[in-house]
Amino acid sequence: MAANSNLKSKTDSIELLVTELVTEFPELKIAPPSVDTSEYSYDTGTTPKIKSQTSGPAVVWPTSVPQVQEIIRAAARYDVKIIPRGEGSGLSGGAAATSDQLVLSTQLLNSIVEINVDDELAVVEAGVINSELNERVQPHGLFYAPDPASWTISSIGGNVATNAGGLRCVKYGVTRESVLSLDLVLADGELITVGQRTLKGVTGLDLRSLVIGSEGILGIVVRATVRLRPIPAARKTVSVWFPDTLSGAAGLSAISRTPVRPSIIEFIDGPTLSNIDAASGTQLRERGGSLILIELDGYGLNEQFRDLSDALSKAGGSVVEETAIAGEALWELRRSGRGGPDPRKWSLSSDIAVPRSKFKEIYAYFPTLEQKYRVEVSALGHAGDGNLHPLITKEIPVGADPSIPDPALTAANLDLIKFALSLGGTVTAEHGLGSAKRHLAELELSSRSLEIQRAIKLAFDPLSRLNPGKAI
Amino acid sequence: MAANSNLKSKTDSIELLVTELVTEFPELKIAPPSVDTSEYSYDTGTTPKIKSQTSGPAVVWPTSVPQVQEIIRAAARYDVKIIPRGEGSGLSGGAAATSDQLVLSTQLLNSIVEINVDDELAVVEAGVINSELNERVQPHGLFYAPDPASWTISSIGGNVATNAGGLRCVKYGVTRESVLSLDLVLADGELITVGQRTLKGVTGLDLRSLVIGSEGILGIVVRATVRLRPIPAARKTVSVWFPDTLSGAAGLSAISRTPVRPSIIEFIDGPTLSNIDAASGTQLRERGGSLILIELDGYGLNEQFRDLSDALSKAGGSVVEETAIAGEALWELRRSGRGGPDPRKWSLSSDIAVPRSKFKEIYAYFPTLEQKYRVEVSALGHAGDGNLHPLITKEIPVGADPSIPDPALTAANLDLIKFALSLGGTVTAEHGLGSAKRHLAELELSSRSLEIQRAIKLAFDPLSRLNPGKAI
Repeated sequence: MAANSNLKSKTDSIELLVTELVTEFPELKIAPPSVDTSEYSYDTGTTPKIKSQTSGPAVVWPTSVPQVQEIIRAAARYDVKIIPRGEGSGLSGGAAATSDQLVLSTQLLNSIVEINVDDELAVVEAGVINSELNERVQPHGLFYAPDPASWTISSIGGNVATNAGGLRCVKYGVTRESVLSLDLVLADGELITVGQRTLKGVTGLDLRSLVIGSEGILGIVVRATVRLRPIPAARKTVSVWFPDTLSGAAGLSAISRTPVRPSIIEFIDGPTLSNIDAASGTQLRERGGSLILIELDGYGLNEQFRDLSDALSKAGGSVVEETAIAGEALWELRRSGRGGPDPRKWSLSSDIAVPRSKFKEIYAYFPTLEQKYRVEVSALGHAGDGNLHPLITKEIPVGADPSIPDPALTAANLDLIKFALSLGGTVTAEHGLGSAKRHLAELELSSRSLEIQRAIKLAFDPLSRLNPGKAI
Repeated sequence: MAANSNLKSKTDSIELLVTELVTEFPELKIAPPSVDTSEYSYDTGTTPKIKSQTSGPAVVWPTSVPQVQEIIRAAARYDVKIIPRGEGSGLSGGAAATSDQLVLSTQLLNSIVEINVDDELAVVEAGVINSELNERVQPHGLFYAPDPASWTISSIGGNVATNAGGLRCVKYGVTRESVLSLDLVLADGELITVGQRTLKGVTGLDLRSLVIGSEGILGIVVRATVRLRPIPAARKTVSVWFPDTLSGAAGLSAISRTPVRPSIIEFIDGPTLSNIDAASGTQLRERGGSLILIELDGYGLNEQFRDLSDALSKAGGSVVEETAIAGEALWELRRSGRGGPDPRKWSLSSDIAVPRSKFKEIYAYFPTLEQKYRVEVSALGHAGDGNLHPLITKEIPVGADPSIPDPALTAANLDLIKFALSLGGTVTAEHGLGSAKRHLAELELSSRSLEIQRAIKLAFDPLSRLNPGKAI
């Protein structure tokens, strides 16, 4: 009864808030809670296979920073929780919302405010799409380095919220290494700047790094000053084929014994190559049992290739210098994932990292998992970072409900995460905890560390108004 | 009277604490407060010209992490404040201490615990000297990138506390970009780990980045897992000479119009060249009125040199490819500073950064400062980062007390900092706020930002036991 009246009052609150916003800001795009907004209850990683028939949250699309501030202040008056959302391409439920909450979408905060070629920086609003920024700076000979696989559909604000990685971060760093400063609207509507426009700065505590990857629980990122880099003098794709998955995983360490720093080092195991072939009509699996896919960039590509090729050949790899067109095709196959979901299977994708030297051990553990949980496990990964994305699948038996996955998938994933931790690894490498992995944080972080993190959350947002139930 | 009894009780507390530590840990190296420890009242940047005759703080040199924890717990019982100290080479008074405080020196926490070549990382205790780590990893073909000018005398723990920069950070990032994880003893003696051994990780808030650069106010860094990098395939020194300071400062922007990413880009103005000549017997000033000193590294050095040389020649520079020996000599001159202090002058050195494109504007402001405050201003800087170290000097008039600098120096420095801020710059780029620049934080940070930073400090150290009066 108490819970019901609480729910009732929360429903009232969101309705009153929406009414006030509609009245106060007649031009504001806003959607009340309804079945029509149910897609805003999830992000890409948590969307159910069957479209939800329950009500989604209220959603508002501010077009300016002062509007964001006003919305936050109004929500505070009605005690409505705010869920910041970029493009919803997250994979851990960081933007998931309930019908009594207000989703604040940054989609219409999408101006590129400034491009400064001499300072190699851009000032962008949070809703700017990663690849759009890249298209805009490319004529100036510059690029924005963080390139999550979602780069054509994900926003800079979302990338900042998750400290997004990507393929090229093995050389250029993750999102944190490309953000100079952030404008942040706090839970009470105040706007602060963290970080600075300069490349260096140590005035006070590093709030900028703290906000990056904080999944919207500390404030709403509305604007970012990001670092750009010169487009390299040249790029070259190299494919290295191994007889099987384990020999490829072992071969990776040969790269770090050279002074070559590739801009991308991806690893694709045998089963994933087969999946890509099945989906794309390619014949990758015929070329080898696993693939290290490398991009070299910068100066002296021939010398870089020579040193790398020597090392990888000695490690048992068959090294191929790809043409520009063939290389582009391979990157397209890699970026588009692992061949798409198989409707006959339940699947669960994960995001772990281990120290690079343990990469082979992780792959060697897959057969154990497969036997123990009667699942199939494959993985592709940002091998240069020790980051891999395992895919755990199981055939859906005849008559089973496709929307209720076998618990073996979750159990196998938990087992794998614990094994990664035992190797010095991490629960999540680049996707974030969100709502989906939040309960796993304590596997990696001590209770004291979590206690400090929660105290920091309260230093920013004492009433827990922003993105409750996410991250820590 | 109240203040006196308070002082008395503080003196009693430190004496009781020292007695307890001596009794409990007979093998512990410890010095009670006395004139003998007066050098521990200061760091390199705040040491007075005339040796202090007042009592310094108590100093303790633990040799293990559990000892650090026991010392912190004992100090808490006597309510004695702890001042963490590396090698005392800081320039902002971050390690300054008073006679009622306990300096916790990390000098004997100096083990290199692990070097892992495959993972390109090392685990070191806080007291390990930066250059010693480099000597130890060099035979493995690796180097530790952060290279503050103090690298032969500063400790990794101190580098972490200040997020130290250096020459090569223009390419390899500052200390933050080379630290994977830290072991931190908190104000109540508990030990936590922040960060992870992997290159990527987003489990929870980024406490690791928050601790880096926090100047010992959040906890005592006792151990660090640091990232190593392969020694580049080759290195080459290039000197670029300009007719005068302003043409050189303007010429810098030519570099960022090329795809070349030098590993070092230093700028030395005319007056500094003359100072170096006077101190070292060199004839640099005859070669030009200002110098951009560049290190190229990696592959394709000839192509890198060609592109860079084209761009800088067009910008009016006279470009010289130095021999290995001549190059090393130039770096040695640069690293050893600006020719040493002149005993006939008061001097004040600063540490500001501006967006790179504003580098010329900063130098163009020096004559205004010189006229306004009747001082001399010169600067050398990590130009690639927009970071410069101005030196403000004034001749000591006959009969004046050399230990009491003319207030014009401080006034000129404050003026310069405000000008840098007006260009989008920062109060301190790599030296930190410490005790010397703490009062300047509010020039750059909003009161709300400072409020959050202080709340974070209390989340770590609720009773303000660690390094009080520093940073924020």
